[in-house]
Amino acid sequence: MKIYRINMSNLSFVAEEVPEEWKLLGGRGLTSVIVAKEVDPTCHPLGNKNKLVFAPGLLAGTMAANSGRLSVGAKSPLTGGIKESNSGGTAAQRLAKLGVKALIIEDIPEGDQWYSLHVHKDGVKIKEETELLGKGNYEVIHTLTSRYGENTGVITIGQAGEYKMSASNISVKDPKGHIRSLGRGGLGAVMSSKRIKYITLDDNDGKGIKILDKETFKTAAQIFNKGLLSHPVSGNALPKYGTNVLVNILNEAGGLPTKNFRMGQFEGTEKICGETMYDTIMSRKGDPTHGCHVGCVIRCSQTYNDKDNKYLTSGFEYETIWGFGAGCTVDDLDIIANIDQICDDIGIDTIETAGAMMVAMEAGILPWGDGLGMLKLFTEEIKEGTYLGRILGNGADFTGKAFGVTRIPTVKHQSMPAYDPRSVKGIGVTYATTTMGADHTAGYSVTSNVLNVGGRIDPLAKEGQIELSRNLQIATAAIDSAGLCIFTAFAILDYEPVSHALIDMINAEYGSNWSVDDWFNMGRFVLKTERAFNQAAGFTNKDDRLPEFFSEPVPPHNVTWDFTGEELDQVYNF
Amino acid sequence: MKIYRINMSNLSFVAEEVPEEWKLLGGRGLTSVIVAKEVDPTCHPLGNKNKLVFAPGLLAGTMAANSGRLSVGAKSPLTGGIKESNSGGTAAQRLAKLGVKALIIEDIPEGDQWYSLHVHKDGVKIKEETELLGKGNYEVIHTLTSRYGENTGVITIGQAGEYKMSASNISVKDPKGHIRSLGRGGLGAVMSSKRIKYITLDDNDGKGIKILDKETFKTAAQIFNKGLLSHPVSGNALPKYGTNVLVNILNEAGGLPTKNFRMGQFEGTEKICGETMYDTIMSRKGDPTHGCHVGCVIRCSQTYNDKDNKYLTSGFEYETIWGFGAGCTVDDLDIIANIDQICDDIGIDTIETAGAMMVAMEAGILPWGDGLGMLKLFTEEIKEGTYLGRILGNGADFTGKAFGVTRIPTVKHQSMPAYDPRSVKGIGVTYATTTMGADHTAGYSVTSNVLNVGGRIDPLAKEGQIELSRNLQIATAAIDSAGLCIFTAFAILDYEPVSHALIDMINAEYGSNWSVDDWFNMGRFVLKTERAFNQAAGFTNKDDRLPEFFSEPVPPHNVTWDFTGEELDQVYNF
Repeated sequence: MKIYRINMSNLSFVAEEVPEEWKLLGGRGLTSVIVAKEVDPTCHPLGNKNKLVFAPGLLAGTMAANSGRLSVGAKSPLTGGIKESNSGGTAAQRLAKLGVKALIIEDIPEGDQWYSLHVHKDGVKIKEETELLGKGNYEVIHTLTSRYGENTGVITIGQAGEYKMSASNISVKDPKGHIRSLGRGGLGAVMSSKRIKYITLDDNDGKGIKILDKETFKTAAQIFNKGLLSHPVSGNALPKYGTNVLVNILNEAGGLPTKNFRMGQFEGTEKICGETMYDTIMSRKGDPTHGCHVGCVIRCSQTYNDKDNKYLTSGFEYETIWGFGAGCTVDDLDIIANIDQICDDIGIDTIETAGAMMVAMEAGILPWGDGLGMLKLFTEEIKEGTYLGRILGNGADFTGKAFGVTRIPTVKHQSMPAYDPRSVKGIGVTYATTTMGADHTAGYSVTSNVLNVGGRIDPLAKEGQIELSRNLQIATAAIDSAGLCIFTAFAILDYEPVSHALIDMINAEYGSNWSVDDWFNMGRFVLKTERAFNQAAGFTNKDDRLPEFFSEPVPPHNVTWDFTGEELDQVYNF
Repeated sequence: MKIYRINMSNLSFVAEEVPEEWKLLGGRGLTSVIVAKEVDPTCHPLGNKNKLVFAPGLLAGTMAANSGRLSVGAKSPLTGGIKESNSGGTAAQRLAKLGVKALIIEDIPEGDQWYSLHVHKDGVKIKEETELLGKGNYEVIHTLTSRYGENTGVITIGQAGEYKMSASNISVKDPKGHIRSLGRGGLGAVMSSKRIKYITLDDNDGKGIKILDKETFKTAAQIFNKGLLSHPVSGNALPKYGTNVLVNILNEAGGLPTKNFRMGQFEGTEKICGETMYDTIMSRKGDPTHGCHVGCVIRCSQTYNDKDNKYLTSGFEYETIWGFGAGCTVDDLDIIANIDQICDDIGIDTIETAGAMMVAMEAGILPWGDGLGMLKLFTEEIKEGTYLGRILGNGADFTGKAFGVTRIPTVKHQSMPAYDPRSVKGIGVTYATTTMGADHTAGYSVTSNVLNVGGRIDPLAKEGQIELSRNLQIATAAIDSAGLCIFTAFAILDYEPVSHALIDMINAEYGSNWSVDDWFNMGRFVLKTERAFNQAAGFTNKDDRLPEFFSEPVPPHNVTWDFTGEELDQVYNF
């Protein structure tokens, strides 16, 4: 495999050998190591010193189930720290098939010209782009699919990215031609700063994946695959209801943040929960279950149609439905689906903008529960890049500062996702301490706190949460590096044969001799590398704290956020 | 003297004894020590845990020349660190005459009611306020003067403060009923968060100042006074041309930041310089020289009339004229005077908003040199609190983030003043390292770099700048604590008898036995206290750096910013 390096200042491309120390890294592990090595931690995230790194995971392009996640890394314009964001779609597998270990985009062009990149079997072609500027992701994908064929992979930014909003994401075409989002941390703005509107991926005649021990790989892959399907969460709940199965579960647990984290239960839950969503999808002839990438066996995505049975959105996630739903006290699933659709189209993170909307409601920009008002803010303000759109599109913290609001649910300037940190304390520890800013996927303690996976730890008590979050953050860094979907973690952590099968696949592909421990050690190394970058950027343990308003008790359990700084600092004691 | 403590949550007032360790502190020394002791460094600056502290200087209310500066301290919503800002006006002397060592405002009210505070001989009365909400500072002062008499002191916030903008200031009525501004760091937003629109000061029957050794004080005060008048800067240049004498001086030195720090010289200098301003004032029957407070002998203020010889503005400073002038390539002094007037009225910092305007011009919001366009942004956007106004009113960094601009001249999120740090390197060291965020007054190295006061240090070379800035930062912390105007420093640093006279006055008033060294040690203590607060708030030495674009050479000397981090870190080696 090769490292593809593109310099946007002189519009050059070079294919480099993969350094020895990067060979057993992929996905997040590789993007973070490259960013930490090559990017000045104190640089401006939108300046010429930042780099944008794309990397498929270690197992990308193989028959390993759920191994098609694409990682993108850079210094984040939202958090000011290192960022890795990942998503499904068709890009990672195409990059792997093209023999691309990582694509590193450096520097920024002089002048105002925009560009597109075209990755193919012989390298990368850089073209000038004008036609698709100002267009949404759906139109970009549609146009490029028409132009280059159904099989073309697309990585693109929408209008939010073009405006360099800190909440803008990078979008990836999925197997159905819909949109998958690398949502968090404003990486769309970094792509925009390099003036790249989109990247196409043509894997025709790509070298393909080389697996050293195909037989072992195949056996392990079958065990892995079966393991995922035999777990109640990844084999049953997620395929049927998608991630939105969590609305009812979190509401019952009293951990569904409602009205900007004032309550842990939402009275409109019934109308927006996974079960209602499933029934709606079925009655409108949508598709309740499919994968975000080829080889996904969990298939938590769906196609949500409108009242006329026409396609409205897909990849309609719990966090989105929570954020614009319970978070903003909106109980209309169709409106939330419309917002999800426009967020995908303009390329903006639903979690960050849900936070921004909650803060806007605090500020009186629109009333609580005004779903149509929110939708209008997306279509008429954010999409158009108006001044209000610029405020909201830069996220919850920025919106709070614009209007003097102090109740802002962020850590490291990034909006908190869909789990109240007081009543699901393990996830609070992750929000506070992950290198990524408030992020549930960085160490999904909801597992043991609420889902009773990997043991049971009382979500309302402090005991065991530090260790839980630490172990999950380490495991997640390793999983993200393999390019695996985070939902493989349920089976990996619960079933020993599944974790062994995973390591067997890696060893079989690369000829390595890893143990499960070695793999977790890689996770530790990635976390420490990321943390060192953040410290060199000026972060301290003061950044590993929750906002002060979480000292308020949250109903129904009336628990507060009660971890001391000293306790939180123990997360990195490994 | 007493500490007056007001709690806005329960609307209570209490007068406390002055703790022994605060007795020889005043002004900045006292505000910083109180903030450091009583405010949680990690709190939200606009939340209930922040405190707003007003303190006259050690010599306030005495016959010591230029001792009437008022210090205000808090955690800054702009920088996120400790902040002291000071100004002239009539408030400090009235507080001193009332026996108020410091006024500490704590907590925030419940509900939406606004208040006013009335400080008088028996304490503080808290009243509800509705009438003056939404009004500008000129109207507030006019109304309160009508209501309570000419002699009433007023501290107030304008619309920018009410909107909680990070660039909003606190304004003080001056002896002519005009406006003096505690400009930097967004302290107006802190006052607004406590929902105080204004404070009146009635010093009738105040206890007055107690001076233990009146004879010694009087003799020393005469030496001090004469010293100020005998120095060429404070005795001649400033009285005649005001601070705007610096436009020509800095332009000649190649250190006048032009077009957002692209050049060090501005071709429109002739039209906006101090000499032109003086001629304009004289021809329009303005007042070329008066003091910002009673007892000022330097008298660098002026009244600038419009073309019809009617009052337009006063306290028309070099930094304002530079910022909206050379900084934005505007060469029309009347337009800049109009902007100064509206900034005073809505209560917003001219340096911070000049930075915001430069960044807005980078973003294409208005063209370079469009003075009338800027004026409109103040009157139609910032004053009205529109969305664009909210962006600009939160300062240069915020504006840059809103529009994805990377060329932002800030340190610790605060806009750089009127001296290019590359061609006046000593001031660059101060910008980088002061606890306050980019601030020229924190260690005015322009003295030895350009004005040849206190020795001569080549402004283009690195040699000696660290020591210069360090010594000036220490001296300034001490001067700010005495409540002295920064312009007394020229004579204090150049003439030994003047510094001795200053210490003699302090000793004579308080019965202390300080040497000049003891006084500087107090300055050291204040700086270290401030720095410790910032570190506890999460600042590191990474915050003591200039933005990366200062690696560009600046004409005419084509010098770059070339200090290493290690060199800058030496400033705090004391």
